[in-house]
Amino acid sequence: MFSEESQDDVFSATVTAPVNIAVIKYWGKRDVALNLPTNSSFSVSLSQSDLCTRTTASCSRSYSHDELILNDEPCEFSAKYRTCIDELRALRRTLEADDDDDSLPPLSSYAVRIETWNNFPTASGLASSASGFAALVRAVANLYGLPTQQAAAAPLSRIARLGSGSACRSLFGGYVGWRMGARPDGADSEAYQLAPASHWPEMRMLVLVSRDSKKDVSSTRGMQITVRTSDMFAYRAANLVPERMRQMEEAVAARDFAAFGRLAMKDSNSFHALCLDSEPPIFYMDGSSRAAVTVVGRINEAAGEIIAAYTFDAGPNAVIFYLHRNRHRVAGVFRSLLSEKQGWAGERGATIQPSAMDLDHGTVSRLRSGVKRVILTAVGEGPVDVGVAGRREPCGL
Amino acid sequence: MFSEESQDDVFSATVTAPVNIAVIKYWGKRDVALNLPTNSSFSVSLSQSDLCTRTTASCSRSYSHDELILNDEPCEFSAKYRTCIDELRALRRTLEADDDDDSLPPLSSYAVRIETWNNFPTASGLASSASGFAALVRAVANLYGLPTQQAAAAPLSRIARLGSGSACRSLFGGYVGWRMGARPDGADSEAYQLAPASHWPEMRMLVLVSRDSKKDVSSTRGMQITVRTSDMFAYRAANLVPERMRQMEEAVAARDFAAFGRLAMKDSNSFHALCLDSEPPIFYMDGSSRAAVTVVGRINEAAGEIIAAYTFDAGPNAVIFYLHRNRHRVAGVFRSLLSEKQGWAGERGATIQPSAMDLDHGTVSRLRSGVKRVILTAVGEGPVDVGVAGRREPCGL
Repeated sequence: MFSEESQDDVFSATVTAPVNIAVIKYWGKRDVALNLPTNSSFSVSLSQSDLCTRTTASCSRSYSHDELILNDEPCEFSAKYRTCIDELRALRRTLEADDDDDSLPPLSSYAVRIETWNNFPTASGLASSASGFAALVRAVANLYGLPTQQAAAAPLSRIARLGSGSACRSLFGGYVGWRMGARPDGADSEAYQLAPASHWPEMRMLVLVSRDSKKDVSSTRGMQITVRTSDMFAYRAANLVPERMRQMEEAVAARDFAAFGRLAMKDSNSFHALCLDSEPPIFYMDGSSRAAVTVVGRINEAAGEIIAAYTFDAGPNAVIFYLHRNRHRVAGVFRSLLSEKQGWAGERGATIQPSAMDLDHGTVSRLRSGVKRVILTAVGEGPVDVGVAGRREPCGL
Repeated sequence: MFSEESQDDVFSATVTAPVNIAVIKYWGKRDVALNLPTNSSFSVSLSQSDLCTRTTASCSRSYSHDELILNDEPCEFSAKYRTCIDELRALRRTLEADDDDDSLPPLSSYAVRIETWNNFPTASGLASSASGFAALVRAVANLYGLPTQQAAAAPLSRIARLGSGSACRSLFGGYVGWRMGARPDGADSEAYQLAPASHWPEMRMLVLVSRDSKKDVSSTRGMQITVRTSDMFAYRAANLVPERMRQMEEAVAARDFAAFGRLAMKDSNSFHALCLDSEPPIFYMDGSSRAAVTVVGRINEAAGEIIAAYTFDAGPNAVIFYLHRNRHRVAGVFRSLLSEKQGWAGERGATIQPSAMDLDHGTVSRLRSGVKRVILTAVGEGPVDVGVAGRREPCGL
């Protein structure tokens, strides 16, 4: 096989990987270079028909140097990309060394080209680095013929973690945990799938994309400020998160939305509280975030139970969880408030009826002026292999 | 003396009492009825030429029932007022019982009339209950001839505390602590003067009164929500505040503004973090509060040291501390941004030169649209006896 390779042969693999939304938040690194977290975290992977990164990794003896092309624009090969590729190359090199009959081409010695597209607006404030590094790692792993079945994905999740901490969770679909681990080298800090999307397929999310999604403080810098200055940070990590992880896994296992939602809101609040407890204080939530919190509270009050739950990452965008059967009572309320915004068209939006709710003027106006567009999505599967000769159109578009 | 009293004699006493601003915050009650706090706190009393409550307490055999008149409007005698008056009456009754020659008129058996005025806008979001109950307690104590010298003010501070927790601190001028105490009956939960205003008379404050000062959640209710639901609340009270109290007392004793300011900002952030960590989360700070935080940060950056410090009570108003010698570099920056707002006229404003600073558009517009007026003030003395026949015009107006 190897002997038949011609100078111009191009080897390639294409995958898509999901965005994930944390419901128990990752905040704080115990090792900045290795992206080792100070606490475990838990996330839900989102449907790739709505949001995903699609990446083609290729290599060839004819390539002169490593290349990275993001949304059709050539980019610098950053240190994080370099680290991930180096780790994957080392795994390929081991395969090649163990290859007694020399059937494997020496791909580890070739330059690589990474072409990657997001099917969602880059300025939407959604963590594209998670899906981006997950897609990169899975595409190169496929290119190199590395084992990628469920059990073997754990080593890959350690490599994705080096690119962006939360990327390790995007290597799995459904309901995903990331064990913080204890070892200084991070060998035991990896993601795991608690349950696939099919375990609780009713889960839906409404993302309220804020008009002003750009962050004053990046996540990486924000974490460092919090770790260094917040007097309450270590307390959450050591005393609160372990029990919340346990309860969250229990809630997902039992498909208990009220417990899931209550924990998600509690941990989001607690994370933003630590940001505010930092010096200087970090404000990721704004007036529109606060309005979303108010509306979720009113929806739950009206329902007499928790049927909607918000979470906020390091930015003002609200992600609101609900079950499909409650879509009118949750997403419908936001639709009636934000009917003019982009995002309600399409298949998912078609099934959601507006539902009026009496709210104070300030809340309504903060929401309307702060939200730019909405995205409707659902829990989804992990990375998808779309073939060696995958077309280059972004997924879902 | 008593025998000479006529049916129509009116006994009266008039005092003024200061507003105080906490720099280590009181948040959380271990006993709601007794207003016993879950942590000690520390405040600065403000000059009564700028902000105060003036109260006349009177009683007479001819009065038919207890009366309360707030800013010239007759009001219900609330349970809190009732409690304070009852406690003071009990002290008077003891004096009368011990009065061997019957020289004391039996004032404890007469109805009382309380007339009280604030010289600051009631909707300004400034804690009028603290100065209000302090003035009430000192006025009635003077009316009843109760001992009110420094050492004896402690029992009165316990009575003021029953009216409104932080009122106990307004019984003293300058730099005031409130020991949380340990006893279930609250006998050891009382305020004390760490240092009079004359110890560090340079301290100045700029209050940015927010356009929307009304609270969604009252302090009392907010505290209860936080105590019941925040997982980090008990940690701050037990592990963080004791050391901050020690450091704050040290900073004030040493007149170390940088240490004072850093602690004030840290504890304000920490208090609002707990509000955000509550279920549902409580947001007292808004966009204009956040802008004030940014401007204070930029002032300190430009100075290369902490010369300005913010604190926020249970509302969006910023109180910004600075020393008189830095007035142009601190208040001057806000003056250049908020020159159109009411409050810069008058004696204090006359000495402050506007000082331009380059700030991003968002911060400037959030500040300008959020702030209604400013108040310039300074550290000041404790309650002032303005005489039995004090005029009824509010102080300082």
